[in-house]
Amino acid sequence: MKKPLILVTNDDGVHAPGIIALSKAMKSLEGAEVVVVAPDRERSGVGHALTMHRPLYCDELREGVYSINGTPTDCVVIAVKEILPRQPDLVISGINRGGNLGDDVTYSGTVAAALEGTLLGLPSIAVSLVAGSRFRYHDAGEVAVYIARLVLKRGLPEDTLLNVNVPNRPFGEITGVRITCQGKRTYDNAIQVVEDPHGRTHYWQGGGTPVWTKGTETDIHAVGEGYVSVTPLHRDLTNYDALGIIEDGWAVKGLLP
Amino acid sequence: MKKPLILVTNDDGVHAPGIIALSKAMKSLEGAEVVVVAPDRERSGVGHALTMHRPLYCDELREGVYSINGTPTDCVVIAVKEILPRQPDLVISGINRGGNLGDDVTYSGTVAAALEGTLLGLPSIAVSLVAGSRFRYHDAGEVAVYIARLVLKRGLPEDTLLNVNVPNRPFGEITGVRITCQGKRTYDNAIQVVEDPHGRTHYWQGGGTPVWTKGTETDIHAVGEGYVSVTPLHRDLTNYDALGIIEDGWAVKGLLP
Repeated sequence: MKKPLILVTNDDGVHAPGIIALSKAMKSLEGAEVVVVAPDRERSGVGHALTMHRPLYCDELREGVYSINGTPTDCVVIAVKEILPRQPDLVISGINRGGNLGDDVTYSGTVAAALEGTLLGLPSIAVSLVAGSRFRYHDAGEVAVYIARLVLKRGLPEDTLLNVNVPNRPFGEITGVRITCQGKRTYDNAIQVVEDPHGRTHYWQGGGTPVWTKGTETDIHAVGEGYVSVTPLHRDLTNYDALGIIEDGWAVKGLLP
Repeated sequence: MKKPLILVTNDDGVHAPGIIALSKAMKSLEGAEVVVVAPDRERSGVGHALTMHRPLYCDELREGVYSINGTPTDCVVIAVKEILPRQPDLVISGINRGGNLGDDVTYSGTVAAALEGTLLGLPSIAVSLVAGSRFRYHDAGEVAVYIARLVLKRGLPEDTLLNVNVPNRPFGEITGVRITCQGKRTYDNAIQVVEDPHGRTHYWQGGGTPVWTKGTETDIHAVGEGYVSVTPLHRDLTNYDALGIIEDGWAVKGLLP
């Protein structure tokens, strides 16, 4: 069997402990060739941002490790089209410092990098560690190997990436794996008002304690029970159920001149 | 009936002609109160990025018009939580300089702003004008009024925003309205290699000619035929069809210790 080529990226930056653990873990996969292409600095919360207003520089830090002065999405595009010797067999992003659960998925640079892999037609996984401190990246790396091996062997449904969230526990104390759906945040009071040195009001987002809708099928619920949550996400955002509802409700066909 | 309060934003910046046309158009809605809160400069392609690493400043440029030194998503959050006198009845983003069709939806700051409105539980619409030059913003504004009036009257399905793309024609020459699904890009050769003054290679993304998969139900197809495309997008990215496929295919339940 040909050695798999694995592209590793993240949104916490090329020097983050999470990507170092993930890169090591991927190398432990049978004979895998691992190339890291990641942002030169932290780019959390950057979503699926793509840099188009300026050129990007790709710096080879050492063999198989590159940094780019751009977003996680930029890294995947440049890696696949310009850096890698061939199409990778897997794109894996993480291990993110903190969970990417529920609606926060849409802000995540980690998930966006995997989405970009999917748009390029490649099997792609995002891995996040649900914790606020004392991150057990090595254990999450073992989980990543487990999931990556399954994806390399079985593949993924078309146009679908995996959003993996790992509870912060020793590998042996993880309850199991659950295939989940994306949870929903109902409330997050998360703006702090601060004054600048000139006395002007500024707003600082982040923090806060999100409240999630209940639902035993969700990513949040699974992680709360000590499971690894694996959510299949789709590149197509269409709400197909809404197509008929709107069409019938509006009866718009031909209403415009 | 109470006067509707409408929040207008975009990703081309507060001074862009598209948002000026959209703001004017919304004011023509029966007695609507319109507040503009938009980025202080162009933030195209920024996706659903949320600024958390620094405070944001909100500058009141004139009555009812504010700029924020952040992303479109930031603008919606700060507007709804800190600026507006009450919850808006509608969030509308645009009119974007260029289409937001197919997979490009995921990079779009215009669409992300409407998504943020949806996450906050508000009826939300993104409006984009599919053109490369000679933008007919006034005509697109008439379309925006038409769609906004329907949404204010009929509401939207839960957790669903509308991604509206308008062909660049006089209002009277638009073929009609179609409810569509998100198209798919299959190919886009779009990296230019440039050298910096020190002779180092840089990569510049953007441009290129996308190739789309065929499909008469798609946003791209509708606009190509002169229709306004209205795509209902969902906040939940879960691929529900894939849940069973992966669960059965992997048979992972309980496989981890």
